[in-house]
Amino acid sequence: MADQKPPPRPAAPRRPDTSRRSEKARRAIYEAALALVVELGYPKTTIEGIAARAGVGKQTIYRWWSSKADVLLEAFLDLGDRGAGATEEAGRAGDRDPYAIADTGDLAADLKGVLRATVDELLDPKYDAPFRALAAEGVVDEELGRVVVAKLLEPSLRLYTDRLRAAQEAGQVRPDIDPRIALELFVSPLAQRWLQRTAPISYEYTDTLVDYALNGLIPR
Amino acid sequence: MADQKPPPRPAAPRRPDTSRRSEKARRAIYEAALALVVELGYPKTTIEGIAARAGVGKQTIYRWWSSKADVLLEAFLDLGDRGAGATEEAGRAGDRDPYAIADTGDLAADLKGVLRATVDELLDPKYDAPFRALAAEGVVDEELGRVVVAKLLEPSLRLYTDRLRAAQEAGQVRPDIDPRIALELFVSPLAQRWLQRTAPISYEYTDTLVDYALNGLIPR
Repeated sequence: MADQKPPPRPAAPRRPDTSRRSEKARRAIYEAALALVVELGYPKTTIEGIAARAGVGKQTIYRWWSSKADVLLEAFLDLGDRGAGATEEAGRAGDRDPYAIADTGDLAADLKGVLRATVDELLDPKYDAPFRALAAEGVVDEELGRVVVAKLLEPSLRLYTDRLRAAQEAGQVRPDIDPRIALELFVSPLAQRWLQRTAPISYEYTDTLVDYALNGLIPR
Repeated sequence: MADQKPPPRPAAPRRPDTSRRSEKARRAIYEAALALVVELGYPKTTIEGIAARAGVGKQTIYRWWSSKADVLLEAFLDLGDRGAGATEEAGRAGDRDPYAIADTGDLAADLKGVLRATVDELLDPKYDAPFRALAAEGVVDEELGRVVVAKLLEPSLRLYTDRLRAAQEAGQVRPDIDPRIALELFVSPLAQRWLQRTAPISYEYTDTLVDYALNGLIPR
């Protein structure tokens, strides 16, 4: 997977010839792909169907992407980019990664902030339905599941490991903690409640997860 | 859902007329249902298909269950029962719920024990493939998802809330902790790693989750 060529992204410097017309086609293709995966499910979504819905030729899609999984992953990355306004604002101040989790020195507040933004996203129907369709297929289709995790999930989780590592360096997280496991204490409960609808999600809920995870369950 | 009549379960006292022959048919139906949901997925699994595979008439299935969701949930409960030998042993000593999580007074050890048993179950292909097929469908089919959670997931989670409440009474868990949320700190990470294959699962991993959750991430 690591050596797979990443699909083109809007405004990427290596596509300087992107005209307004092809940008419009790209947007139509993303929207068609997301709509179809919600309506038909992943297995019945086809390149042909996406092309027809987007009003473009099949060859337009194949010129940019090699498979429907590629188109869909791109459409999700684009959806995430458009929904990441708040996080981007936060990062714009310095020369840090614009997607990095804020580091105000208050670890609890920073984690609560990014989890609240995730709650907003998960409760947004525009995001919920297509991501749900893709996640469901990833559960049974191991190959697709691994691509979804590598391209969509792990890059966001890396932002948490970075923030937790910074907290370790600041002496705010125990040095023996593995950040990649630690982040799951608050990220996975939210993911499971959303994906399996085990219970409602809210700011209060994710704030509580952060407090429990940082302070622990046993008396201090 | 609460007023839905629970489907019959093997060896339940209210079915004293269960003959060896109908028990054999029931077992064949369970196996056929689990096999088909793996091979075809939930949407394409039908009562007709289950009957044909099990070598019974359709009416035999409809006599015992009202829908394919009911048959499958029963088949899973039965699979869980047969896999729960160890837990049952542990509970047999007293008059406690045979499925209750052991209470040796050592909360960390008790939680690690039950999570290790869950790791075993999740790594068992007999359990993995059918439960994965059902969980995937539950992600996109909200009604099925809610039934799966209510009948398969929540009853197991209740065992964790019971154990955490006992620990609270013993002063080993802070009194302000909500056990239903607290259990997610170790249960949900395991569920997400398994369901979405985000990373491998092992005893060492679940032991670590318990230690992190109980002690917290910040220095003590």
